[in-house]
Amino acid sequence: MKPLRQRLFAEFLGTTALLAIIVGSGHMGETLAGGNMAVALFANSTATGLGLWVLIELLGPISGAHFNPAVSTAFAWRGELPGRDAAAYTFVQIGGAICGVVLAHLMFDLAPIQIGIKPRTGTGQWLSEAVATAGLLLTILLGLRIRPGAVAGLVSAFIACAYWFTASTSFANPAVTIARSLTRTFAGIRPLDVPAFVIAEIAGTVCALLLLRLLAPAAQRGR
Amino acid sequence: MKPLRQRLFAEFLGTTALLAIIVGSGHMGETLAGGNMAVALFANSTATGLGLWVLIELLGPISGAHFNPAVSTAFAWRGELPGRDAAAYTFVQIGGAICGVVLAHLMFDLAPIQIGIKPRTGTGQWLSEAVATAGLLLTILLGLRIRPGAVAGLVSAFIACAYWFTASTSFANPAVTIARSLTRTFAGIRPLDVPAFVIAEIAGTVCALLLLRLLAPAAQRGR
Amino acid sequence: MKPLRQRLFAEFLGTTALLAIIVGSGHMGETLAGGNMAVALFANSTATGLGLWVLIELLGPISGAHFNPAVSTAFAWRGELPGRDAAAYTFVQIGGAICGVVLAHLMFDLAPIQIGIKPRTGTGQWLSEAVATAGLLLTILLGLRIRPGAVAGLVSAFIACAYWFTASTSFANPAVTIARSLTRTFAGIRPLDVPAFVIAEIAGTVCALLLLRLLAPAAQRGR
Amino acid sequence: MKPLRQRLFAEFLGTTALLAIIVGSGHMGETLAGGNMAVALFANSTATGLGLWVLIELLGPISGAHFNPAVSTAFAWRGELPGRDAAAYTFVQIGGAICGVVLAHLMFDLAPIQIGIKPRTGTGQWLSEAVATAGLLLTILLGLRIRPGAVAGLVSAFIACAYWFTASTSFANPAVTIARSLTRTFAGIRPLDVPAFVIAEIAGTVCALLLLRLLAPAAQRGR
Repeated sequence: MKPLRQRLFAEFLGTTALLAIIVGSGHMGETLAGGNMAVALFANSTATGLGLWVLIELLGPISGAHFNPAVSTAFAWRGELPGRDAAAYTFVQIGGAICGVVLAHLMFDLAPIQIGIKPRTGTGQWLSEAVATAGLLLTILLGLRIRPGAVAGLVSAFIACAYWFTASTSFANPAVTIARSLTRTFAGIRPLDVPAFVIAEIAGTVCALLLLRLLAPAAQRGR
Repeated sequence: MKPLRQRLFAEFLGTTALLAIIVGSGHMGETLAGGNMAVALFANSTATGLGLWVLIELLGPISGAHFNPAVSTAFAWRGELPGRDAAAYTFVQIGGAICGVVLAHLMFDLAPIQIGIKPRTGTGQWLSEAVATAGLLLTILLGLRIRPGAVAGLVSAFIACAYWFTASTSFANPAVTIARSLTRTFAGIRPLDVPAFVIAEIAGTVCALLLLRLLAPAAQRGR
Repeated sequence: MKPLRQRLFAEFLGTTALLAIIVGSGHMGETLAGGNMAVALFANSTATGLGLWVLIELLGPISGAHFNPAVSTAFAWRGELPGRDAAAYTFVQIGGAICGVVLAHLMFDLAPIQIGIKPRTGTGQWLSEAVATAGLLLTILLGLRIRPGAVAGLVSAFIACAYWFTASTSFANPAVTIARSLTRTFAGIRPLDVPAFVIAEIAGTVCALLLLRLLAPAAQRGR
Repeated sequence: MKPLRQRLFAEFLGTTALLAIIVGSGHMGETLAGGNMAVALFANSTATGLGLWVLIELLGPISGAHFNPAVSTAFAWRGELPGRDAAAYTFVQIGGAICGVVLAHLMFDLAPIQIGIKPRTGTGQWLSEAVATAGLLLTILLGLRIRPGAVAGLVSAFIACAYWFTASTSFANPAVTIARSLTRTFAGIRPLDVPAFVIAEIAGTVCALLLLRLLAPAAQRGR
């Protein structure tokens, strides 16, 4: 394992880049798509998938490339990351995510900090977040065992896919959810709707850990 | 080979996820595309291709990742899967597929079970299903011999491609066909049109097994 | 090398599939795109790229997966394929290509044989075909030396790209050009315009063989 | 290392092809997209990503496949390329880029040399260019250490992604910036706006070299 400081810097930089990509490409897509929201979402999902792949490949060997408190918590729960490190990861992930939103706003000459206005609520949305997070966690945990060299690609493909098959477009990440409440652009969410999303994401994480027991009994804890 | 129970769970979960992806992304695409059905289908085919790749990579080592009675039957016919297992696979594939449709409906706040209304019939459609299923089977059977490490990618690419070059958008899977008769969304099919689709898919399976003899004589049966 | 008969069957089947994909996906895209021809072409180029990748991966180990008289001729010229085999390849490639167009028409309930009506002529188009064919040949010949395991992907990526940066959408293949004169759908070409396209493709082939000498002096002839 | 002459020819040919792809696919996309600029940009970004991947895979083993004075300069600064070679690379990159623009114009029957008219200026655009160039350089420099076999893919994915999340659509390359001032098509830029873009790209290059020290201390200079 690399020194914690170096790992935290990688988590910070990666989460910053991830949010700049999500918010920036969502804004660019919406601005150019002339009202065809499927085209905007396609630009958004493709850019996110490609960018996430690059970030995980490059930063994975440094910090694990979690960029997501749900992932760091799951690794801590499985005994693969000290609890203290997971807490520090979460802290810099949230900080990086907010910086990424600000960076996207600055690149597009928008107000740096905004308050999200897009309502994202209801049982369908919450179920979507639980399903998306469970799927993401299973992709990571099974993938690391079965195809470690392809995990970056698998995670990116899952996220680009999940933009489309869930009603919430798959935030699947508490740090991303918090940060996206700070933009009024395409990728935004009302701050009011954040807590329920985070609860659904936690439920999805637990669900993934249970499903993993059924799918790969020997895969519980440890490598 | 893993225990049957574990394999069946993987087939169930994978087919559930596959149908949630097909139906969910089709609905999302249609809802957002403002009437441009090519954009909706592109979202649908891309999400299906990406999701299928992830599912086959992750669940392949557990159950073979068939998610398709035509595939399980072909393996049984070639002596690579006990007939009894193939029957059990088929049973959970159909069950999983139906659960996936229900899950997609719940995520999008739609009635859980619906009756498909989209007519899909005629000789062009049936020929399309036979061609699509033959192509899928050849991709799997040749791919496993020639590029086993790339089969997941090849199958996904074939399906994403076949959405476009066949008039039926390539169901190529009896379990998928049955389950898609339970949705009125973009990916649906009238229950009335299901039997002919399934017959065409069986014809395509037989056709693939014959073509394989001509293409790779030594590839008949066994590894 | 596999027996000639088996190789010819692979070339026939592959070229049939390739044309069914090109013509089928072009027609599907145009039909659904509601007049947005960029969306139609995107569906067309993506389906072609994905399908070509699958075909080359699967049939490459059998016949080399040329599907293209310009490629077979270049291999013959370099002494890597007997001239007689190249002539036989060309023959079945043209036959397969025509069968593929007919298959696409039948799947979409169209008249099996049609006469193309889309004008594709002028110096820009001819230059495009020469550039596209030269690029395709260089991708194959350099790729086989430098990244043999990735050639299928490189060729597919090149073709999907070349749909967009050339004015002709890159036929880059005499058999494909002839066959596409037999459809009135999106991918068609007037029979009148075929000879100049084929000449431009031959010029591009010669150009690629010359450029290869400058780029990789040791790569001339033989492995 | 290959002889300089051979390397320079590869840089020239690659940069020519890159600009033909960027300008050609941008023009094709804009012409066909019926006013939906997101669709045009998607065609542009996808074609660029695919083409760049092919070019880097094929020409990387010959010249390093920089196609970009910022990259050659960074390698020179790190002591991995003689300063003299970097100057020669820059010279042929600019020449090749201009030839590529002319080639695209000729393929589309447009005036060979034009003067760009699209304004691209302001702090958001400049910040975008700095971010894009820093990201590109980090992708290359980290990628070469961590996943050398995947660098071509990572660079292409980064560029296709960066088209969307930056306000400038990511030129990230002084030679590309200069050459794009010679077209009035979709990918053009006013000559007046070129110097600030180049300065921002230089700032991004410096920024990447600093960030690399924090991310991978041992990665400074040398392998």
